[in-house]
Amino acid sequence: MALEDTRAAVAPLDEPAMAAARARQDTLTKPPGSLGRLEAVSIQLAGIAGKCPPPVPRRKAVIVFAGDHGVVAQAVSAFPQEVTPQMVLNFLRGGAAINVLARQLGAEVTVVDAGVAAPLPPAEGLIDGKVALGTADFTLGPAMTREQAVAALELGIRIAEEHFARGVELLACGDMGIGNTTPSAAITSAVTGHAPGVVTGLGTGISSEGRARKVAVIERALEVNRPDPRDGLDLLAKVGGFEIGAIAGAMLAAGAARVPVVVDGFIATAGALVACTLAPNLKGHLVGGHNSVEPGHRAALAWLGLTPLLDLDLRLGEGTGAVLAFPLVEAAARILNEMATFAEAGVSGAEPTA
Amino acid sequence: MALEDTRAAVAPLDEPAMAAARARQDTLTKPPGSLGRLEAVSIQLAGIAGKCPPPVPRRKAVIVFAGDHGVVAQAVSAFPQEVTPQMVLNFLRGGAAINVLARQLGAEVTVVDAGVAAPLPPAEGLIDGKVALGTADFTLGPAMTREQAVAALELGIRIAEEHFARGVELLACGDMGIGNTTPSAAITSAVTGHAPGVVTGLGTGISSEGRARKVAVIERALEVNRPDPRDGLDLLAKVGGFEIGAIAGAMLAAGAARVPVVVDGFIATAGALVACTLAPNLKGHLVGGHNSVEPGHRAALAWLGLTPLLDLDLRLGEGTGAVLAFPLVEAAARILNEMATFAEAGVSGAEPTA
Repeated sequence: MALEDTRAAVAPLDEPAMAAARARQDTLTKPPGSLGRLEAVSIQLAGIAGKCPPPVPRRKAVIVFAGDHGVVAQAVSAFPQEVTPQMVLNFLRGGAAINVLARQLGAEVTVVDAGVAAPLPPAEGLIDGKVALGTADFTLGPAMTREQAVAALELGIRIAEEHFARGVELLACGDMGIGNTTPSAAITSAVTGHAPGVVTGLGTGISSEGRARKVAVIERALEVNRPDPRDGLDLLAKVGGFEIGAIAGAMLAAGAARVPVVVDGFIATAGALVACTLAPNLKGHLVGGHNSVEPGHRAALAWLGLTPLLDLDLRLGEGTGAVLAFPLVEAAARILNEMATFAEAGVSGAEPTA
Repeated sequence: MALEDTRAAVAPLDEPAMAAARARQDTLTKPPGSLGRLEAVSIQLAGIAGKCPPPVPRRKAVIVFAGDHGVVAQAVSAFPQEVTPQMVLNFLRGGAAINVLARQLGAEVTVVDAGVAAPLPPAEGLIDGKVALGTADFTLGPAMTREQAVAALELGIRIAEEHFARGVELLACGDMGIGNTTPSAAITSAVTGHAPGVVTGLGTGISSEGRARKVAVIERALEVNRPDPRDGLDLLAKVGGFEIGAIAGAMLAAGAARVPVVVDGFIATAGALVACTLAPNLKGHLVGGHNSVEPGHRAALAWLGLTPLLDLDLRLGEGTGAVLAFPLVEAAARILNEMATFAEAGVSGAEPTA
């Protein structure tokens, strides 16, 4: 679907299905509430699916969107830009962390070139969705045109829709792009209102001098571009990135298709900020995957109202934290589908006098 | 092995294997340290296995030990004692939460009657290890004899050893026993030095009046029995439980066999306190599974030096929180085994000037 149709198709969660899930949880053979966050996720899944119990996600996938960033000219990253295409090849060969985790946890990996700053030869498993050879340096003007922002979003929508058409029932979006904590921090600062100094971290591992430079770069980018924090398209065009836009698009498509999407770290969450600005109903559809070490992640999660399932001091991206949370999301669905009730199992309930 | 031999066989972690794992992590295609807690677990797994990379655990299991508690006569639980054998049947039929999660996550479930206060008919999948028909009410004297405490520990050792003999490479111990947060709080109070009021919670869901009664019961039990906090056998005999002793035994056997064991919630952690009092080297072998809602769990984990992998507001037991952490432990091992290095993948390293 086109962007506007997708935005419009993201509906609120289904309240009757959630009420049914809440009621069912209290009939299962366990003390009420004793499965904690899993119970909350199971209720959310019912609300997303619009039925109780919600389906157990059999087919799972992570889409890794790669893109480059003109702002690396400002020396904001610990790694050279050539690492973006090198890591794309590593994904295609199965040697990256996301490959290892996805293999273990039964998730398909799709790699999409959303805007890597180098030509990538056609390769099995690589989808060419290149919007441009990297964004422009957004300390000098917008990162991309508004048309490119729409193209990035619609790339994500299209790829996600292809996944849902072949039966994917649980999605994560990952990122690869040297320098991409910088646009993520710029988006987070603009949307949440926190100063760049608060939401900027060490990325892949810069020095404290490097971080000070990065904060100044983000301050300059916001001053030069003045993005509208209520308009995801303006945010994305002025201080975003192609992979961030594609992630936002894939999340919107998941919301429209009523497929739960697990949010990864700082970059994917910046994508979620863009997406939720475009379709506020999407907030209810997102499942928080993990808490990143990046300081801006907490601010972005708070704005989205998400409490992630995992807190493992990860800061890798690629969708790793989201895929690691897949078993917990699946467990939440299975609990509602597969546990016996007190009546079925002939187990006595709590004593009234306790 | 007998208890004394098992205690003696629990060795410290292998430092050279851990150093090799630490060094290998920094060669893998990710920013150093970016897999956070997974990297720490991978290093611990190398230390347990005594080699780098550590084996990827293929065969996984949870042993659920069930036992009853004479102290339920003091009205410390929200559920009647008949629920213990009823839940054992629910485990055997596959309808409990631990069955659902173990099926999903590829773990075998073994159910052991360590001391349920009712005769249980022989059933497929049920191991009869009954030490006695429940413990004695420990507000009146010891919960069990010292011989029974040894029997409970050696039951756990034997069952765990049978698992390792058939190839189980990752273990969790679960519990079922109405009233068993009360002995767990008593053990935790005795070992950590925190007052009963600090380490006593609502269990399966008692009222605040019920909790006040439970605190008084634990205070009385500690006063009547005066367990020696440095002697796990004395602790177990005076204020423990048969399932808690069997859990402690299984953990000791895991330490002796160099198989990693994931610690579940408050009751399993009370078992870990008993086990580590008997074999202090065991502390290094334990992987924290999850943070329970029970307030005493934090105190017990702090004493053990464990930071659990999950924090999902669970308070169910049965091994559920430990089994939910299995994929994270497996992921840690797989990362060290399967990720490409920078050299293998032809990926550039960090820039020296960042």
